Amino acid sequence: MRRYKVLLVVGDGLGDRPIEVLGNKTPLQVARTENIDLLLRNSVVGLMDPIAPGVRPGSDTSHLALLGLDPFNYYSGRGVFEALGAGAELSEGDVALRGNFATVNEDMVVKDRRAGRNLKEAGELVKELNERIGEVLGVKVRFYRGTEHRLAVVLSGRDLGEKVSDTDPHEEGLKLNPCAPLTSDERDLRTCKVINELTRRAHEVLRNSRLNADREREGLPPANVLLLRGASKYRAVPSLRSRTGMDGACVTATAVIRGICKALELESHTPPGATGGLDTDYLSKGREAARVLREKDFVLLHVKATDAASHDGLAKQKVEAIEGIDKAVGEVLMNFGEELVVAVTGDHSTPVELKEHSGDPVPLMIHCPNRLTREDVSHFDEGGAKRGSLRVRGLDLMNLLLNYSNRAQKFGE
Amino acid sequence: MRRYKVLLVVGDGLGDRPIEVLGNKTPLQVARTENIDLLLRNSVVGLMDPIAPGVRPGSDTSHLALLGLDPFNYYSGRGVFEALGAGAELSEGDVALRGNFATVNEDMVVKDRRAGRNLKEAGELVKELNERIGEVLGVKVRFYRGTEHRLAVVLSGRDLGEKVSDTDPHEEGLKLNPCAPLTSDERDLRTCKVINELTRRAHEVLRNSRLNADREREGLPPANVLLLRGASKYRAVPSLRSRTGMDGACVTATAVIRGICKALELESHTPPGATGGLDTDYLSKGREAARVLREKDFVLLHVKATDAASHDGLAKQKVEAIEGIDKAVGEVLMNFGEELVVAVTGDHSTPVELKEHSGDPVPLMIHCPNRLTREDVSHFDEGGAKRGSLRVRGLDLMNLLLNYSNRAQKFGE
Repeated sequence: MRRYKVLLVVGDGLGDRPIEVLGNKTPLQVARTENIDLLLRNSVVGLMDPIAPGVRPGSDTSHLALLGLDPFNYYSGRGVFEALGAGAELSEGDVALRGNFATVNEDMVVKDRRAGRNLKEAGELVKELNERIGEVLGVKVRFYRGTEHRLAVVLSGRDLGEKVSDTDPHEEGLKLNPCAPLTSDERDLRTCKVINELTRRAHEVLRNSRLNADREREGLPPANVLLLRGASKYRAVPSLRSRTGMDGACVTATAVIRGICKALELESHTPPGATGGLDTDYLSKGREAARVLREKDFVLLHVKATDAASHDGLAKQKVEAIEGIDKAVGEVLMNFGEELVVAVTGDHSTPVELKEHSGDPVPLMIHCPNRLTREDVSHFDEGGAKRGSLRVRGLDLMNLLLNYSNRAQKFGE
Repeated sequence: MRRYKVLLVVGDGLGDRPIEVLGNKTPLQVARTENIDLLLRNSVVGLMDPIAPGVRPGSDTSHLALLGLDPFNYYSGRGVFEALGAGAELSEGDVALRGNFATVNEDMVVKDRRAGRNLKEAGELVKELNERIGEVLGVKVRFYRGTEHRLAVVLSGRDLGEKVSDTDPHEEGLKLNPCAPLTSDERDLRTCKVINELTRRAHEVLRNSRLNADREREGLPPANVLLLRGASKYRAVPSLRSRTGMDGACVTATAVIRGICKALELESHTPPGATGGLDTDYLSKGREAARVLREKDFVLLHVKATDAASHDGLAKQKVEAIEGIDKAVGEVLMNFGEELVVAVTGDHSTPVELKEHSGDPVPLMIHCPNRLTREDVSHFDEGGAKRGSLRVRGLDLMNLLLNYSNRAQKFGE
C-alpha cells in the first residue's frame, strides 16, 4: 500500500446557513469551486461536528480536535496558544494571557479598546515593556507582540494559578477591572497580585513613553494601558508525530493557529501576502503549502478570510473567500504534482446572518487517490454534505486521514 | 411482543472499494445475493464503523465490539484469544502467546517461518512438547495445537507480565529474536526468562524428535523451532448472556473467533466442510447455524473466505464468497423455518486493491420480522448502505439486535 501525504484545508468559520442576499443559499452553495469539486468525485463526504452536535467551538478548541486532541482534556484557555503563536517558548506551569494595547483616561476608564487599531508602535512598546519590567513580585514577566494592537504576556514562576478574571472590561466606557481570583486557591490569588502589579507598572511605562507622546501630538489615542484576558496555564501536549507518525506543518497567518501548531510540534509558515484577512494572497498560500508538502507528511492550510467575512456579515466576500480557497487548492495540486489525500472542511460554522460562531456541523470531504465508492454529491456545500455518508466528529478526522492515506495502525490483528 | 431469535452473519473483511477488474464496482455490488436482498426489504440498513471512524480494526478487536465489549477495555492482545480458540482453559493471570512451528538452521536463522506450511505432524509435536516440557523456571507451560503450522503456548504462574517482545522475527533470513521486556517491570522480565528458556528447550525437543528426522528424510523442512508472538494476559470478560440475556453460539472455522466466543461463553461449532478458506462448505455452515438456532437465542455465523480472498487480491473469488454467504443465509432460513432477526455485516473492510484491513465503515443491515419503515435501498452493498439510515459503531450493534428482536431491557421507566 502506498502511503500518501495529507493536505488538510480548513476554511475558518466555513459552514453557513442560507442567506437572503445570496438568494437563500449558503456561500458554499453559491461559490464556484472547480478544483474542490473535481476532488469531490473520488471522496468521502458528509458532515462533521467539530466538538459535538450543537456545541459552539472556538477556532482554538476546534483545531485541537481536528488535529486529534480532545479539547476537553487538552484545552487550557486561549492565552497559552496566543502566546505560543506570538513566539513565546513556554515551560510547564507558565501562565499566559492575551491582551490589547488600549487607551484609558486618567480615571482608568477605557476610551479605546484597541488604541486606534493599527498600532504601528506595538513592537517598540513591547520592547520597552520587556526592558522596564523583567520581574514582578518575584515572577518573571515577558511580553510578546501579537498582530496589530495585540500582545501576549507570560508569567514564569512557581505556584502560579490561572483561574483568574480578565482585566479587560470587554467594553469601552468602563473602568479597567482589577484581576480577581476565581477560586480560593492561594495560587490564583498570587497570579492576580502579579497581574495587577504588572498592569500598574505597564501603565506607568506606557504613559511615560516618548512613543505615546508622539502619538498624542499626531492626534492618535495613546496606547497607555494593557487589557488582559484568557489566563491559562501551559502544559505540554502530545505532538502530532507521536500520535500519528506524521511530520507536519501549517500554512497560516493567524496567531492562535500558529500557537496550536507549535504546541503540537508543527512548523508554521506564513508566506508573503498571507494576511489572515480578506486581502490574503490565496495563490501564495497554495504555493507555500505545496512547497512544504515536499518535506512533510501533513500540511494544514488554514484560511481565516471566511470567518472574517462572516463576523462582519459580508456574504459576498465570504463567497469570494471560498473561491480563493478553491484557487489555493488548485495551486497546491499544480505545484505539488503528486497524488495526495486532500481534506476540505471548516473548524466551525460562522453563519453570516448570525455574525458569530454557531454549533452547526460543517461540511467535510476527504479525497483519496485510491478509488472510493461514489457519493451522490457533485458540489461541496452544506446541502451536498447532508446527503453524504460521513457523520463524524472533529476528533475522528485524524483517524480518517490516516485511513485514507494508508497510514493507519491496525488495532488488534 | 414476541421475542425473536437472532442470526448475526459476519463476512470477515466484507467491505470493499470499487475494483477495476469488477468494472469499478465493489464485490458486494457485483454479487448476486437474492436471499439477503429479500431480507433487506424489511430491514434497517446503513454503515457501521466497527471500532470508530477511520480506525483499522483487527478481526479480534472488531468481534469484541460486535459482541458488545469495548475492545479498548477488553482487548488484551491476540495470544489469549488464539489460545482459547485452540482449546486452552485459561485462569486469571495466565499469559498466552500464539506461534508457528518453523525451521531454523544451526545459527538459529529462520529458513521457513511455517516449516513447509501443512504440518501434518503438528498434533504429535505438540504432544511431545507437553510431555517433555511441563514446567519452566517454576512456571507451568502448556502447548496447544492451532491450524496447520500454528500453536498456542500458555504460561501459568504468579507474577507473570505480558509486555514482552516477540521471538518471531516476522521475516525469513533473520535470526530468532530473544524475548525482551517492553517495560522495566520485574514481571515482564520474568516472563521473558521463561519464554527464552522454553524456546531453548522446545528447540532441543524438536531437534531430537523422530518426527523431524522422518521429515528430513522425506526432504521436508524440519519443524525444529517455535516462533512466538502476541503475548497477552487473560482476564475474564463478561459473558454475552450476562449482558444480553441471550444464550449464544457461533459457527466458524477460525481459531481466533472461536477464542473470542469462548471468552464470552458462546459455544463454537465447526461443521463438516467448514474450512475458513475459499473452499468452505457454505450450505453446511448454514445448516449448522439453523440447527444451533433451535437451541440458542443468538448465533454468530462467521465466514472467513471474504477476508482470505481480499488479502490475496482475488476480486472474483471475493464475489463468489459473498454469493456463498448468501447461500448460507438461504440455507439457514429454509432449515430454521421460523421468523428471526437476521443481521448481515462485516467485521471490517479489506479492500481487494489494498490487500489489507482498512478503517472504512462496513455495510450493515438488520432484518426484523416486525414491519419497519422502508429504506431506499434494494441491494445490500456499500453504495446502498451509504443511502441507508444507520450510521453506528460496532459497539452499538448488540443493542440494535436486542431492540429488533424485542429483547431490549428498558433503561429507565
